[in-house]
Amino acid sequence: MERITVVKIGGNVIDNPAAMKRFLKEFAALEGPKILVHGGGKLATRLAERLELKVQMVDGRRITDKGTLDVVTMVYAGLINKQAVAGLQAAGCNALGLSGADGNAVTARRRSPQPVDYGFVGDIERVDSALLRRLLEDGMAPVFSAIMHDGKGTLLNCNADSVASAVALGAAEIAPTDLVFCFEKAGVLRNPDDDTSLIREITAATYPPLKADGVVSKGMIPKIENALKAVEKGVRSVTIRSSENLSNGIGTVIRNS
Amino acid sequence: MERITVVKIGGNVIDNPAAMKRFLKEFAALEGPKILVHGGGKLATRLAERLELKVQMVDGRRITDKGTLDVVTMVYAGLINKQAVAGLQAAGCNALGLSGADGNAVTARRRSPQPVDYGFVGDIERVDSALLRRLLEDGMAPVFSAIMHDGKGTLLNCNADSVASAVALGAAEIAPTDLVFCFEKAGVLRNPDDDTSLIREITAATYPPLKADGVVSKGMIPKIENALKAVEKGVRSVTIRSSENLSNGIGTVIRNS
Repeated sequence: MERITVVKIGGNVIDNPAAMKRFLKEFAALEGPKILVHGGGKLATRLAERLELKVQMVDGRRITDKGTLDVVTMVYAGLINKQAVAGLQAAGCNALGLSGADGNAVTARRRSPQPVDYGFVGDIERVDSALLRRLLEDGMAPVFSAIMHDGKGTLLNCNADSVASAVALGAAEIAPTDLVFCFEKAGVLRNPDDDTSLIREITAATYPPLKADGVVSKGMIPKIENALKAVEKGVRSVTIRSSENLSNGIGTVIRNS
Repeated sequence: MERITVVKIGGNVIDNPAAMKRFLKEFAALEGPKILVHGGGKLATRLAERLELKVQMVDGRRITDKGTLDVVTMVYAGLINKQAVAGLQAAGCNALGLSGADGNAVTARRRSPQPVDYGFVGDIERVDSALLRRLLEDGMAPVFSAIMHDGKGTLLNCNADSVASAVALGAAEIAPTDLVFCFEKAGVLRNPDDDTSLIREITAATYPPLKADGVVSKGMIPKIENALKAVEKGVRSVTIRSSENLSNGIGTVIRNS
């Protein structure tokens, strides 16, 4: 099979209808086999608020109780997923929406309740690359929400970046795979206010000084370390870039070496 | 391919967690290729109420405005569909959830706004039986919600009984297909309060007197007429029966002759 492109989008695209529409059109136009992974955005939070679900936080992290799990399943695996799939179909891309439970595509393990019980939150265990291969060979573009299952009947909310990395690793078993994280900025910037300060490439060798100097900080640290792990394990490249002009190559490319 | 079984469940199963669990176990145990179609149940209505969406009714029928469409997409294509799929996976059945948009499985046409605009409501246009064949040949059990799409980016809420008939007709292009409507009663009863008054068989020839005598009345009329159309067009049999003990054959069987 030709090289596979896996693209992950988050709230900055999903929460902006115009950006989402533009993105879906660009994704539909991408050549070759491709997979979309989407996160959630603010809609689930707004819905939980309107339903007056109590948001429990521990160490700045939300607890996914049963009510919250139902809300994210509705919003991520239902509304966002189906709207994305319908939008892609309209743009001529034969998309097929998947939670982890669908076709047993991705199983996850519920995170240990010790020391903190985060509720129905899971970490990816296994991606069925044979299923990905069949869907891609049939000309379909799988569209993943981050709702996975444990194989025992329980749905689990997972981190969409981790889902994207795991799906890209599954795809890499089929063909060379490039993973793209769509981001609100042009990529990793030396100066966050200056798009021209883009760092074009990060490798396992060049990363430690960037972290030590604070160029890569806060939320970018897990993103880059996640990406470095993915390329180490077999994803050909990970690019962190703006969601706009998906088909051009600008962004920060993370390679193994 | 072996004969295909299409089973449709509605609110009486979906709204009862114990009945749903039992049903999913029985569906998982059914031999041969199979497809599940599920309706909605009361959860969407409750959610719409909690969100204080105004329910507009015309001639006793609900108008599906944009807010209502989002709610049914969340509940039907999201929560109910993914819980069913995860439950089937746990029971050893490799289920794959689908809206009509997924894989372009089912397209619908928005109902004419004349004389009454029901909003985002559609009538089935086309079922992709080639996709059904591929999924069934891969050993998967498609699980359909009644959320379809028009191919132009718009999701449409459809009648789940009509979806079941259309999907069964699509399946009948692949292999002999039997359609089962799960019902709160044992089937069509001569006396609604007496399960032993079950009518075992209805055909195009025996139906008119049953309707004239009022044995088939109200909500059963569209169900039976829908079933008669399905068997006329090529579904081998349609059975209306209780959701309990799915694998035994009792119920009202509608055949072409």
